[in-house]
Amino acid sequence: MSSIADFLNKNGKNWENSLIDFVKIPSISCQTEHMDDCLRAADWLQDYFRKIGFTPKLYPLSTGHPIVYAESPKIADAPTLLIYGHYDVQPVDPLNLWTECSPFEPVIKEGIMYGRGTSDDKGPLFSHIAAAEFWMLQGDLRPKLNVKFLLEGDEEGSNSATEIFVRENADLLACDYLALSDSTQFAPGFPSITSGLRGIAAYELILRGPIQDLHSGMFGGAITNPCNALVEILGKIHDENYRIAIPGFYDEITRLTQEDQEQLRILPFDENSFYDSVGVSCGLGEKDISVLEQISTRPTFDINGITGGYQGEGGKTIIPAWASAKFSFRLVPNQDPDELTVSLKRWLEEQLPPGITMELIIEGLSAGMLVDLSRPCMKAAAKSMEFGFGRSPVFVREGGSIPIVSTFSSALTPNVMMLAYTQKTDNAHGPNEHFSLSDFTRGIKSNVKLWQELAVL
Amino acid sequence: MSSIADFLNKNGKNWENSLIDFVKIPSISCQTEHMDDCLRAADWLQDYFRKIGFTPKLYPLSTGHPIVYAESPKIADAPTLLIYGHYDVQPVDPLNLWTECSPFEPVIKEGIMYGRGTSDDKGPLFSHIAAAEFWMLQGDLRPKLNVKFLLEGDEEGSNSATEIFVRENADLLACDYLALSDSTQFAPGFPSITSGLRGIAAYELILRGPIQDLHSGMFGGAITNPCNALVEILGKIHDENYRIAIPGFYDEITRLTQEDQEQLRILPFDENSFYDSVGVSCGLGEKDISVLEQISTRPTFDINGITGGYQGEGGKTIIPAWASAKFSFRLVPNQDPDELTVSLKRWLEEQLPPGITMELIIEGLSAGMLVDLSRPCMKAAAKSMEFGFGRSPVFVREGGSIPIVSTFSSALTPNVMMLAYTQKTDNAHGPNEHFSLSDFTRGIKSNVKLWQELAVL
Repeated sequence: MSSIADFLNKNGKNWENSLIDFVKIPSISCQTEHMDDCLRAADWLQDYFRKIGFTPKLYPLSTGHPIVYAESPKIADAPTLLIYGHYDVQPVDPLNLWTECSPFEPVIKEGIMYGRGTSDDKGPLFSHIAAAEFWMLQGDLRPKLNVKFLLEGDEEGSNSATEIFVRENADLLACDYLALSDSTQFAPGFPSITSGLRGIAAYELILRGPIQDLHSGMFGGAITNPCNALVEILGKIHDENYRIAIPGFYDEITRLTQEDQEQLRILPFDENSFYDSVGVSCGLGEKDISVLEQISTRPTFDINGITGGYQGEGGKTIIPAWASAKFSFRLVPNQDPDELTVSLKRWLEEQLPPGITMELIIEGLSAGMLVDLSRPCMKAAAKSMEFGFGRSPVFVREGGSIPIVSTFSSALTPNVMMLAYTQKTDNAHGPNEHFSLSDFTRGIKSNVKLWQELAVL
Repeated sequence: MSSIADFLNKNGKNWENSLIDFVKIPSISCQTEHMDDCLRAADWLQDYFRKIGFTPKLYPLSTGHPIVYAESPKIADAPTLLIYGHYDVQPVDPLNLWTECSPFEPVIKEGIMYGRGTSDDKGPLFSHIAAAEFWMLQGDLRPKLNVKFLLEGDEEGSNSATEIFVRENADLLACDYLALSDSTQFAPGFPSITSGLRGIAAYELILRGPIQDLHSGMFGGAITNPCNALVEILGKIHDENYRIAIPGFYDEITRLTQEDQEQLRILPFDENSFYDSVGVSCGLGEKDISVLEQISTRPTFDINGITGGYQGEGGKTIIPAWASAKFSFRLVPNQDPDELTVSLKRWLEEQLPPGITMELIIEGLSAGMLVDLSRPCMKAAAKSMEFGFGRSPVFVREGGSIPIVSTFSSALTPNVMMLAYTQKTDNAHGPNEHFSLSDFTRGIKSNVKLWQELAVL
């Protein structure tokens, strides 16, 4: 059997063509007119698994987008690796900004493949399938592993059905290790292993006052205005040091260790460029905490949307009947979103002025997570990426949230390896989404190496 | 010449029919498809004035809704009374709630005339024209007055063009007294003279942050969120005693005199019924100030509308690029809206967090006003309403604002008599708007008496 490098030289073009076929399927999960396309994408995966010698099976979900499950021929006494990915993609609007190609007619230009889903997540996902194909071709000589794939079609919509599936099928999905590639490299030239994610607690708060909008001349001064109440309450969530005033909010949070600080220090990050990139001259955060620490390792409170009263042209002097805000906290490891919900609700009720009633709707809760970098599999993952990328990876805590990873970690295994192959600049979710074929082949090589490492761990 | 009571018995029906004709014209000023109807209403008034011996003239305005001006035959050395009213009406939506009649097909049921504009302001306005007709019929025996009418067609829209017309035509409109009927009786059985109005200062504040909506996971914690900034700033406008924290806001305000307090005490007002009527159990206002005092004699800060970020179904975890609020202060006499604008702007700028820029748009400014009740004309007005209603009127400060009255007071005469003939329950601006024919005839009688009184003052 040749090395993966030789094999890529000879057969890499086939994998590129297969990925193009996969990207051509417009599997947009949140648009019902693409329901059949999502099924086609699931079928395409099933066929590919069958071709390389895996046993695939579709598990229908209530969303209409089935889980694609596949497993390799069983090997007794070998460890099990589960690989997660998603075959659904984001919508493509605005179409007029797709200047490199039509979203589902992928093209390759100067080593870059353009098309919706190339980087999120069809490309990275397929790098694991390619590794599986190469591995199977080695027959009995292949590293001794049991490999399972769990590929969902609801990641870009609400994937709570997938979370339930995972919890209810812990036996089917039982594994020693879990790998996924759905996060990004810190910067070009910095292959990355995502070592932590922030959790999220998202809510909508609705305040109600009078039964209808009132004339502010006839009633103003005596009737509590729900818009006023909303700003007066939410305005108190940040204290004067820009810390969150909900009692107990910081109780379980630990400051970064020396090692964590060290990891942050080696990352290339310029605060001024960061601000420039979004058109502001400066920002606002907790005192004495660097921007990079702030956006990846500290919790936040952000109002995502606010609405109430008259929002048309000109003015209308009313006391609105209601006002509402959608807001979310990004959480860091050890913060329990359920406990936060309880203390938030109690705190909000205490702030409520007379004449106003409140409703708090939970939009989503998921805990943050942190990978224990001392686990042997993390060293194996680092070694594999060093093989694939020619440079040892950095461990990076991401500020975003991948709720299902917490589920994996609690329901399946704590040995979660988030191998980041794409770039932040790949325009995931945006027009001209793309994926570098160099990152694609480096990913395949990393995966091949990882399987060797895990087999002998 | 018969008394007005006798004349009403014999000819009152004619005035009712004329009012019905007037109400039939759908003179909705804010809807361009009714532009011609507004002109028809102006023509109708012009014809009526000509018929009763006044000299009318239309003055075109940029809005397309002309000023109807009319004057009586000149009498040397007699005082001049100017009467203000408006011939335009509010839109009629929602039509399905008009259960008593179609808005522009007025009907009379049990002594009540239903139809758009019956109470606001065609009915009260016409009560003054009827008085003019009765007065002219007395020929040389009539009380010695010069009477002018200023009737506009933009009150329900923006009447800044009318305000400019008044300031630019102070000679034409020169007068010793000014009467209008566009406010409401305090309660049934409480004929009222409006003795004060609150002013208003209305603004829109727009806060801008990043150039586009940002992912709150990747940027949250370091980029200032315009929605957060908005609630944090506006949340500080009310202090812990629910007083307005803009520096100097209360400097020029005087507390009520003994006499003012006395006026408030005799008014029938039940706080619980007030709250019940709008579906709340209680309210919120400045400490130790009664509800009635609060809504008529104290300034306010009300957010009329607020908007920013994601307002659709579910959640979207973004840091919005901008947020805005429309808000207004009701002002009491002695507060200068221009001075407030300066101190508000300075105060807002001081509160602005790093990374946020602001724009403050002025939506409208008008000062509050207070009638000096010791003026002889006010005693004449009270005497006249006592004659018309059989009961002496109360003097009431209204919480709402009629910006043009401040213009009259400063540009023409301080002798402004706001004779309130309609009821708060007449559904002005709402469906089934109506006007009691009893209030109509009482108004006519009050007007007739007023002209006698003013001629000999």
